[in-house]
Amino acid sequence: MKILVTGFDAFDGATINPAGEVVNQLPNTIAGVTVVKQIIPTIFAESGTVLHDAIVREQPDFLLNVGQAGGRFGITPERIAINLDDASRADNAGQQPRNQSIQSDGPDAYFTQLPVTEIVASIKALGIPSMVSTTAGTFVCNHVMYQAQFMRANEFPFIKAAGFIHIPFLPEQVTDQLSPSMALTDATKGITAAIQTIVTHHYDN
Amino acid sequence: MKILVTGFDAFDGATINPAGEVVNQLPNTIAGVTVVKQIIPTIFAESGTVLHDAIVREQPDFLLNVGQAGGRFGITPERIAINLDDASRADNAGQQPRNQSIQSDGPDAYFTQLPVTEIVASIKALGIPSMVSTTAGTFVCNHVMYQAQFMRANEFPFIKAAGFIHIPFLPEQVTDQLSPSMALTDATKGITAAIQTIVTHHYDN
Amino acid sequence: MKILVTGFDAFDGATINPAGEVVNQLPNTIAGVTVVKQIIPTIFAESGTVLHDAIVREQPDFLLNVGQAGGRFGITPERIAINLDDASRADNAGQQPRNQSIQSDGPDAYFTQLPVTEIVASIKALGIPSMVSTTAGTFVCNHVMYQAQFMRANEFPFIKAAGFIHIPFLPEQVTDQLSPSMALTDATKGITAAIQTIVTHHYDN
Amino acid sequence: MKILVTGFDAFDGATINPAGEVVNQLPNTIAGVTVVKQIIPTIFAESGTVLHDAIVREQPDFLLNVGQAGGRFGITPERIAINLDDASRADNAGQQPRNQSIQSDGPDAYFTQLPVTEIVASIKALGIPSMVSTTAGTFVCNHVMYQAQFMRANEFPFIKAAGFIHIPFLPEQVTDQLSPSMALTDATKGITAAIQTIVTHHYDN
Repeated sequence: MKILVTGFDAFDGATINPAGEVVNQLPNTIAGVTVVKQIIPTIFAESGTVLHDAIVREQPDFLLNVGQAGGRFGITPERIAINLDDASRADNAGQQPRNQSIQSDGPDAYFTQLPVTEIVASIKALGIPSMVSTTAGTFVCNHVMYQAQFMRANEFPFIKAAGFIHIPFLPEQVTDQLSPSMALTDATKGITAAIQTIVTHHYDN
Repeated sequence: MKILVTGFDAFDGATINPAGEVVNQLPNTIAGVTVVKQIIPTIFAESGTVLHDAIVREQPDFLLNVGQAGGRFGITPERIAINLDDASRADNAGQQPRNQSIQSDGPDAYFTQLPVTEIVASIKALGIPSMVSTTAGTFVCNHVMYQAQFMRANEFPFIKAAGFIHIPFLPEQVTDQLSPSMALTDATKGITAAIQTIVTHHYDN
Repeated sequence: MKILVTGFDAFDGATINPAGEVVNQLPNTIAGVTVVKQIIPTIFAESGTVLHDAIVREQPDFLLNVGQAGGRFGITPERIAINLDDASRADNAGQQPRNQSIQSDGPDAYFTQLPVTEIVASIKALGIPSMVSTTAGTFVCNHVMYQAQFMRANEFPFIKAAGFIHIPFLPEQVTDQLSPSMALTDATKGITAAIQTIVTHHYDN
Repeated sequence: MKILVTGFDAFDGATINPAGEVVNQLPNTIAGVTVVKQIIPTIFAESGTVLHDAIVREQPDFLLNVGQAGGRFGITPERIAINLDDASRADNAGQQPRNQSIQSDGPDAYFTQLPVTEIVASIKALGIPSMVSTTAGTFVCNHVMYQAQFMRANEFPFIKAAGFIHIPFLPEQVTDQLSPSMALTDATKGITAAIQTIVTHHYDN
């Protein structure tokens, strides 16, 4: 069994991306499942292709995309991806789509197959803040989550479950801001627990 | 040279107090200065006495009180203590003073002698959020900070510098709340850096 | 032409609901369109039926549901309704569905037909805070928004556009809380502008 | 009897200042007391002089300074002014004092003589959010509040009570920001109630 876990490169003027940092910190095996890592560029037009190529190459059983959600207080698994790009700032290629569909023939939204309630419970059990989220926004994070679901539905039925988890800023990103943050060690523990829960939940159900 | 560092016991229904946890984690020597630790009860009527006894016993050169400020985003050295108890909830002895002076013949407020700007810079240099604060509130934290200044001014002139630093909630205290928090390791690193800065600043000035 | 505008009764221990108050304040004609008002109970099991009956009775051209979103800073038109009831507190009938589909054979989500970007622009032009929202939550508000879309898609094709707008607390609901609020006059002006935009946009497109 | 009420001109790139707007809206008599209005420039070096001249000219019995506190949720009477200028941004003359005393021979702080608890109660009774504040910051607002107290203590003993009240942003200042705001009518009602309370409290005590 294999899980493909993706992070993003830095964007919006930042020099690091907590999601990329966390993915790099993950062990190569969690709960008996091989963890394959992939960094995705924070670019609308390329992110889907990079994800597609990684899925073709790795043929994973599970897919977990991790991204940064500045301003959030805890680790937030996303319930749903929506068929909309609407960027309030440019991506890393300087593109800023406004109010555009991601897939013209796709449904309005896809629910994740991840057990979001159980993931939150497993993270909170470690003393780390976590809440279910009902919006992944309309930037590259939601775009990737939607593309993953669209690919799973139309091309890659071997993916048993796919989904997205947002993590807060790292403390070093907000040293003089009134913004919540989470230590890298806690974010990494939380994502590791999430992966354990994804795998365990699959075998239990 | 010796620094007396105090924390508090848990209050307001909590089972832990980050300040007590951090103080317990501190090494016994920082920057060549002996670190003496003291837990203070979160009780208006007793906190001053416990602090007084510790000062008499230890005769410290520096005094640093550490307390929890739920809702804050970073480590916040306090500029000033004010001559007012006004509790929005009961302390650990069930007492809730409202709009009362701490010392009927004391001044309205005392500035700290700690180098708060330099402390903030030293903590931020570690990638940990920190800001100067201009209010320690009107609960037991401000009470202890004021009492310390009043004692220093009237009884313990050997204390070269005294002050208070607030730290955020620990993550485990707010796992399902929209509240900022800080990992214990970061809070401990930050308070350690603050103590180094207090000592260094004294020798530099 | 006719627009059906709904609000809710008070819930969660409150004695008023800003949405109900605003709906009551609306004039009976806006931009030449007749405004019909309906209060919906904050009850999962009844809200859909009350809405259904009002649509059957009124045969409206447009449908706008208004609800309270405590904690929000501005008037927030919702982009999307999702097929999920997940209540963190009981509704007014004491029911608290957790992780349940609204319509077992419905799609995961429906986008609104309302011109949300234009609505926001028209409200901001009045000096009133407004932002597009991508989540209506998982309580009765989202439930009603989803039910409205499901009815429109399956039973009431004469509804040209339907959607939901959330408004903040009224000031009187949060006099001693650190919570944003909006004056009733501003909320009413904002919803009036939204209705004008809905009607105008329809004729322009 | 006479009360001098001051507001500020716009600063920090804004085109309006809610405090100036509210002061302009006040009636000329409240609770039988003459209301005299004065706009103070948001300039450290001039604000004290303008205030001083107005006090000399008007010989008021009461003094109330009103200022904007962006980010606050309610009307917040200030308990205390501190002897410190520390500007995080330039004032309207381009000056940005850092860590400087306001009066080299002044005390660390002055408590207000205003009945802050009663003022908050009177504003909340109108359904308008209000809380006591323990910090007026370290920008021109605190500067003016401190200067007023210093002048009262040393030069103008005829001022029975002086103090400062902060009000939130107006809605039009934050139409696309996640920032709390308060309608001008509510801010004006709140400051009017505060003045009534100041006068009434004086006669009651």
